[in-house]
Amino acid sequence: MSTVVQQLDHTHNPTARSWVISANAGSDFPIQNLPLCRFEEARESRVGCGIGDRILDLTAVAIAVELPESLRDALQYVAGGQMRPLMMAGSYAAKALRHALFAALSEDASDALQKQLKPYLRAQVDTTLVLPVKPYNFSDFYSSIHHAARIGALVRPDAPILPNYHWLPVAYHGRTSSILASGTSFHRPRGQVKTLSGGPEYVSCRRLDYEAELAIYSGAQNALGEPIPIGSALNHVFGIGLLNDWSARDIQFWEYAPLGPFLGKSFATHLGDWVVTADALAPYWTSPPWSEDGERKLLPHLDDPDMRSKGGLQVRVDVLIRTAKMRAEGIDAYKISTSNFKENYWTIAQLVAHQTSNGTNLEAGDVLGSGTLSGPTDDSRACLMEFTNGGTVGFDLPTGEKRTFVEDGDEIVMTGWCDAPGFPRIGLGEVTAIVLPAR
Amino acid sequence: MSTVVQQLDHTHNPTARSWVISANAGSDFPIQNLPLCRFEEARESRVGCGIGDRILDLTAVAIAVELPESLRDALQYVAGGQMRPLMMAGSYAAKALRHALFAALSEDASDALQKQLKPYLRAQVDTTLVLPVKPYNFSDFYSSIHHAARIGALVRPDAPILPNYHWLPVAYHGRTSSILASGTSFHRPRGQVKTLSGGPEYVSCRRLDYEAELAIYSGAQNALGEPIPIGSALNHVFGIGLLNDWSARDIQFWEYAPLGPFLGKSFATHLGDWVVTADALAPYWTSPPWSEDGERKLLPHLDDPDMRSKGGLQVRVDVLIRTAKMRAEGIDAYKISTSNFKENYWTIAQLVAHQTSNGTNLEAGDVLGSGTLSGPTDDSRACLMEFTNGGTVGFDLPTGEKRTFVEDGDEIVMTGWCDAPGFPRIGLGEVTAIVLPAR
Repeated sequence: MSTVVQQLDHTHNPTARSWVISANAGSDFPIQNLPLCRFEEARESRVGCGIGDRILDLTAVAIAVELPESLRDALQYVAGGQMRPLMMAGSYAAKALRHALFAALSEDASDALQKQLKPYLRAQVDTTLVLPVKPYNFSDFYSSIHHAARIGALVRPDAPILPNYHWLPVAYHGRTSSILASGTSFHRPRGQVKTLSGGPEYVSCRRLDYEAELAIYSGAQNALGEPIPIGSALNHVFGIGLLNDWSARDIQFWEYAPLGPFLGKSFATHLGDWVVTADALAPYWTSPPWSEDGERKLLPHLDDPDMRSKGGLQVRVDVLIRTAKMRAEGIDAYKISTSNFKENYWTIAQLVAHQTSNGTNLEAGDVLGSGTLSGPTDDSRACLMEFTNGGTVGFDLPTGEKRTFVEDGDEIVMTGWCDAPGFPRIGLGEVTAIVLPAR
Repeated sequence: MSTVVQQLDHTHNPTARSWVISANAGSDFPIQNLPLCRFEEARESRVGCGIGDRILDLTAVAIAVELPESLRDALQYVAGGQMRPLMMAGSYAAKALRHALFAALSEDASDALQKQLKPYLRAQVDTTLVLPVKPYNFSDFYSSIHHAARIGALVRPDAPILPNYHWLPVAYHGRTSSILASGTSFHRPRGQVKTLSGGPEYVSCRRLDYEAELAIYSGAQNALGEPIPIGSALNHVFGIGLLNDWSARDIQFWEYAPLGPFLGKSFATHLGDWVVTADALAPYWTSPPWSEDGERKLLPHLDDPDMRSKGGLQVRVDVLIRTAKMRAEGIDAYKISTSNFKENYWTIAQLVAHQTSNGTNLEAGDVLGSGTLSGPTDDSRACLMEFTNGGTVGFDLPTGEKRTFVEDGDEIVMTGWCDAPGFPRIGLGEVTAIVLPAR
């Protein structure tokens, strides 16, 4: 039997429709999605659910006495306006919320209920979203072998993939203080970099890069000292979103031996506004790319029959750039890459099982970054370090501008969605930010 | 002019005495110390101040209407029972609190005030302390060159000290979820380790180690994008405490390339109960060990005349072991090592300046770990990896037991204090924990 969040139910029915009609017209937020977000109203935090081009104010609904008690009960964990209590409540609470929202927003909902709910809908376009949660812990994996191989070839041509890579999903801890909401501009970092002539210098980063990643949000916590078995790993996943792991390659290159990335990463990390819950992902699981490779040896705590058959997840992630000149001239963002998490060497269940295999505890709302989602093809290289081969091969933009790394004024936009034959596309929204000059 | 927290004032007067008489008899908590802690009373968090063998309940004092308003005002930031608001309030608020407490606890305080305060004193021995603060960010440095050289010699005999070491204080981010209060036992971690014969295995750690460190707690926050200049770095330091950075050497050794330590560290990290505030440290600053070495080149953002003359800090840290057998037989803990932070290659001001040099923001209560506080001598090797030369040279205990790494049932105790000629010794308390068998 597969993990409960991987099971299809009526909420995944591709023919289901919402009475919020914008949800039915090829929206990335159809009723099968029901992603969560957070926003502020009169400085108070609220949790919302995306439906078409609207947001349902779940925090308001949770305390609206005129609404059915069963609906309010299912929303009890977001009544305080934060997402963390719901994350902490575990997978059954998340499923109950999804089912209640599906019933309330379905075209089968009673006219009376529709009328009662309408005042709690607001336009997404008029709503400024904030970070879904302030994560207490952020670990960043290196789980695409295509990314690891290309980066490895640049820095260790003789041994691009190290021996441990095939046995464990390599990762490091990132900084949480500088995690930013999508849309928040930031200044190009300064830092210590190596000069060709000898000693280092403290300068503005010259090799600013992005990394397109998924954020995997943890849900139900485990106690310290109790690893999460891989078979129940997905029950500890609350959902996924987009993540841009900004990287200052010149700072990183000089600092990283022997203890790994530090200031090359910690100046800014952006999370997407939306969290697509684990239950919404059920139709999009697939076999990992190596599943038919009998040679893939795994230690038992990172192996599982279910994971081998459907541990991969079909999430498309595109990276686009919009320079200051493109914005001024009204030119559409230019797509640099398109990749899919289903190509990933390590699966979400393996990341969770490995992360906790030493007994460390997940706190609700922790972010496990997938690492750069590069695939095998050239157009799926999901950071510029790969895309420009270490800054040696630039690319042209429609304006005639050329890029090898990210320049001041550039906006990097990542968009993502899940898609699978026979099911609607459900979106993760986007994560975007403009780079300001160094101060 | 030196940083405000480095300036001596009347609170450092070595002849000052408290009306709490246990503070005057060679206590580690004399009136010149006034360290802070946190405890719970009826499940409510409170901030306390150590004085002799007592704790003054600052949270209760802050809201005690019968007490002088000036005293209560100075304690306003701890009225809510948490240390973070005080940390966030910055160095002037911390100094005001220190001065108010000094006046209130001095033998010069009026009889009336002494009588009013007595009900708010409690015995330390009857009080269970909790973590001073839940840090949102934990970065761990590698700032002792003696530690780096010995570890480097074990893993890279041809290049023990890498070129970047002299130019920046190497560090990585640690995990905050598994930060534990002193006295909290934990289970030996399991993890993936390399076997001699080939592939890895998932087993109980066989090379469990400690690292004696200082925890440097951040105070006033900086805005994202605004590095803290080294000249004002100490104004962003709230105080220091003890830290045991438990390390599973076999897990760490297999996982750490190329992104640094992860599961080899994240299973448990212990913080001492007490925070000695930055103002209390004024008498103990000294010149760094390399200060007369004209060859020590530093980039301007990590250099400062004040730091060169008194950037070092005299903090003695001892490591002791008490095995299960020693406890059963009533044998005193056995001292393994004794080291002093004044030997450190990188100073606190440099750690803060480097950490924020890319613009990342400190949040109040963040922990910057000094890294293992090893000195140049054999008896100052502050982790077993060094002390037993990579596990090759064991040592004997009074019970006849032998150790190369930490065994189940062992308690590791670290104690620390500041000392300088002409000034009283002020203690950091201890950090201790017993290792339980793997589950």
